[in-house]
Amino acid sequence: MKSVALFSLFLFCVGANANSQIKGEKVEINVRELGSPGSVWPQPQHYSSTTQTYAVVAEAFQFVYSSTSHKCDLLTEAFKRYETLIYNNVATIKLKYFPRDVASIKTLEVDLMSPCEDYPSDHMKESYALDVADKASLTSDTVWGILRGLETFSQLLWASDSNQVVVNKTNIIDYPRYAFRGVMIDTARHYLPLNAILQTLDAMSYNKFNVLHWHIVDDQSFPYVSDVYPDLSIKGAYDDRTHIYTREDIAAVIEFARLRGIRVIPEFDSPGHSTSWGKGQPGLLTPCYSNGKPDGTFGPINPTLNSTYTFVKNLFGDVKQVFHDNYIHLGGDEVQFNCWQSNPNITKWMSDKNITGDYSKLEQVYIQNVIDISETIGYSYIVWQEVIDNGVKVQSDTVVEVWKNNHPDQEVAKVTAMGLRAIVSAPWYLNIISYGQDWHKYYQYDPSNFNGTAEQKALVMGGEACIWGEYVDATNLSPRLWPRASAVAERLWSAESVNDVDAAYPRLDQQRCRMIRRGIPAQPLYIGFCPHEWKNY
Amino acid sequence: MKSVALFSLFLFCVGANANSQIKGEKVEINVRELGSPGSVWPQPQHYSSTTQTYAVVAEAFQFVYSSTSHKCDLLTEAFKRYETLIYNNVATIKLKYFPRDVASIKTLEVDLMSPCEDYPSDHMKESYALDVADKASLTSDTVWGILRGLETFSQLLWASDSNQVVVNKTNIIDYPRYAFRGVMIDTARHYLPLNAILQTLDAMSYNKFNVLHWHIVDDQSFPYVSDVYPDLSIKGAYDDRTHIYTREDIAAVIEFARLRGIRVIPEFDSPGHSTSWGKGQPGLLTPCYSNGKPDGTFGPINPTLNSTYTFVKNLFGDVKQVFHDNYIHLGGDEVQFNCWQSNPNITKWMSDKNITGDYSKLEQVYIQNVIDISETIGYSYIVWQEVIDNGVKVQSDTVVEVWKNNHPDQEVAKVTAMGLRAIVSAPWYLNIISYGQDWHKYYQYDPSNFNGTAEQKALVMGGEACIWGEYVDATNLSPRLWPRASAVAERLWSAESVNDVDAAYPRLDQQRCRMIRRGIPAQPLYIGFCPHEWKNY
Repeated sequence: MKSVALFSLFLFCVGANANSQIKGEKVEINVRELGSPGSVWPQPQHYSSTTQTYAVVAEAFQFVYSSTSHKCDLLTEAFKRYETLIYNNVATIKLKYFPRDVASIKTLEVDLMSPCEDYPSDHMKESYALDVADKASLTSDTVWGILRGLETFSQLLWASDSNQVVVNKTNIIDYPRYAFRGVMIDTARHYLPLNAILQTLDAMSYNKFNVLHWHIVDDQSFPYVSDVYPDLSIKGAYDDRTHIYTREDIAAVIEFARLRGIRVIPEFDSPGHSTSWGKGQPGLLTPCYSNGKPDGTFGPINPTLNSTYTFVKNLFGDVKQVFHDNYIHLGGDEVQFNCWQSNPNITKWMSDKNITGDYSKLEQVYIQNVIDISETIGYSYIVWQEVIDNGVKVQSDTVVEVWKNNHPDQEVAKVTAMGLRAIVSAPWYLNIISYGQDWHKYYQYDPSNFNGTAEQKALVMGGEACIWGEYVDATNLSPRLWPRASAVAERLWSAESVNDVDAAYPRLDQQRCRMIRRGIPAQPLYIGFCPHEWKNY
Repeated sequence: MKSVALFSLFLFCVGANANSQIKGEKVEINVRELGSPGSVWPQPQHYSSTTQTYAVVAEAFQFVYSSTSHKCDLLTEAFKRYETLIYNNVATIKLKYFPRDVASIKTLEVDLMSPCEDYPSDHMKESYALDVADKASLTSDTVWGILRGLETFSQLLWASDSNQVVVNKTNIIDYPRYAFRGVMIDTARHYLPLNAILQTLDAMSYNKFNVLHWHIVDDQSFPYVSDVYPDLSIKGAYDDRTHIYTREDIAAVIEFARLRGIRVIPEFDSPGHSTSWGKGQPGLLTPCYSNGKPDGTFGPINPTLNSTYTFVKNLFGDVKQVFHDNYIHLGGDEVQFNCWQSNPNITKWMSDKNITGDYSKLEQVYIQNVIDISETIGYSYIVWQEVIDNGVKVQSDTVVEVWKNNHPDQEVAKVTAMGLRAIVSAPWYLNIISYGQDWHKYYQYDPSNFNGTAEQKALVMGGEACIWGEYVDATNLSPRLWPRASAVAERLWSAESVNDVDAAYPRLDQQRCRMIRRGIPAQPLYIGFCPHEWKNY
């Protein structure tokens, strides 16, 4: 297996082999080979680069607005962030003020052609054009496209053997293949301190992810602090003083994400996976019966009581106050019917409604009510695939997340054939670990590779890398996520044809070293080294 | 599965169930159940504890020498270290000066009954006696026993619900089951910065490991800086400025280890696994032949040249200057014979020596010479099992490390039947990962569980947790090692009968939270939480 050491030997691969991603572009002589230093992850849609380099004045580099550009705080913040990254993380420690005898670049001119949007959303545009020549310029219709372009530009810079920061003459036109590119974190099986979440958002921005799916509560704990139902976290969190997310904590996460063009979608999974909810909200869960009487255990949320829906409405109203995005994830996975089956009150209620024995109908009653509540509040919604698998009727704007790993392609085909939009996470449960380069399989799974029409394929919104928390907390979150999630990032951003693991290796290896340099402890792909190893203890 | 939250519910389990480890001790009424807060990992040999607690004056706690005790800098350093740990890591952040209305303990009186030894060694003694009652005292014949007892004492302390640091009335008599309890690190597949090694030593001391086996060089890189052969690292390291271990670096590691009672044994693996050696020492490796001429590739070290042994002698002499321990690991694993077979000069030499075709004899020539050199220099030595499996004749004081995972018990039986001492690492390759609680299998493997006589069993010196570096560097070393290596630590220290994973779980869970509090990012065992989560980014 190739190691980094090998790649440093051929800085320039001069040749006529055009990059297969260049379409409709003039192929220049002396095209640089992908994987050379200063390569980009995820691979841009249209990329041409030559061996001509410009020196970059890293110690004083500035992003500047063009005369016609729209301006906003969000972008000015991003300029500062990337100026710091370029100074600290691209320039080598040894010689930042090397005399320059070649053409040098001191600024990147940014042209934002439309007013800034405040928050990223499901209809955000992220395309941009980047040109590095005698002058460097970055253009986009949206602030989100400019953010993606700034990231790309920062990755183009590299340190030559003489410790000169340089950038190759490069032209890029870029846009994402999928609009929904998520990372799911789980703060219920283990609590994640705020800075672990912020670090994850930083790493996401380096990989052009645009959705943080925050599985915030589950059976084990309820760290979300609700203004209307404070007992939920007081009694349901692991520790109601230290293992909680206050409104201010969540606002900080959302603001950090907003500045990086990342949406934050909370998941309040119900009616299953809700044991911890019951601690602070007596009467919410279904009492399970054994031998004709309640046995002290509880099942899913009780769908037969009006009080349940009052509670959900109040809770979601509270959630909507802090989680701005127009989407909420409603969960709906792994609902166990046996407790409902044991409870005589549930049985009677179902009999009265003429749905005796049909527990998926009962589930449908619950889901339909919760969907209605969500819509009333102003949320669109995502559900796990069981909602569909159990035959629950949903509205046509429902987004279905496919997570089961037995033939996810067939499930995507089924969901999209129903006219529903799909998100794929089935192949990308990164909490599942095995020995070796398992990123290969993440990289090679294509969400659109299923039997279906063009209309069906258009309903695939994207996917998510999920890192469930049974065996993950802040001690191992980042090395377990990165760079394995980077493989998912490229699958979701880059062209379908960018799927060769051997070609990807040197770029992904650079990307992981880049993340280390930027403070993310991304674990190794294989044998080798980074110019700057991880030293932050 | 039980989570930490559960355990916090029964702080004291008052009952008549005696700890099965208490042998020959009076069993007191109100014995504390193992796994209660303030439990010890690895489990002491003889342990009795009651529900009676003493307040500990954590903010001013001091270790003091008894009037008859020997004293030395090493121990005084340890006192400071553990005073800091008790202050920073046991006392809670909330209330360190809680009014005390119970008997309190301000000092632990240490009685070292023999003069301090300077360095830990293969014949070090580590037994100690610890008594916490109205007065707290720690006694040992050796400074190493005192170090182990200090660690045990620090673990006995816990924070009560009222944030009072307390310790239970406890009596411990303790000693290790095995004399050799190692952790192997690999700095050749990936370079480990010095602080990653020091952090590993810290964590080792918290788990009573006593040997760092430093697999310092291999095919991929040669970070060891040799005074006599500087080209070895100049040409063989990943980067000869940043990815090396100087004599000062190594001295710092050895001193850090010495202060914690940990030996440092270097491995210079040969004649295989030596590709990187050849870069700085032309003529050392065997040129491989294809179609009758050298094909530019190289095989194992050439055992037929006198220059080889001059080199080894000079290199090992240099190594002995910095690595104090009286043991060196000579490697000897995975020697491929095909390159030797291809080389006509090797063939002729073997013919001249009448060993034509017998490549294990050729290997034996090399190993025997290297063993002789090691002995001349003053090193005893360890070899990997292939040296024995290939039929190489070795001297009776050879230590054999069993690493192959196909019937390691049979290999240990074979090695010890030959009268050789054995170290077991076969079941404990912690770089191999899988989903779930794989510590169970590490915990339940017993190195002495093989068909053999009592004499054979006495030849099992202990074992090692190995973390090979193909997929491990400083980004993921600590969470991957800990607490999985802690399971190995208890297997090697505690009584054979301490092998119930369910009983171990709450103690191991405490141990992992303790490590986090002390700055080691030990990953979770399963769902749950620590009072203080990992926050050091």
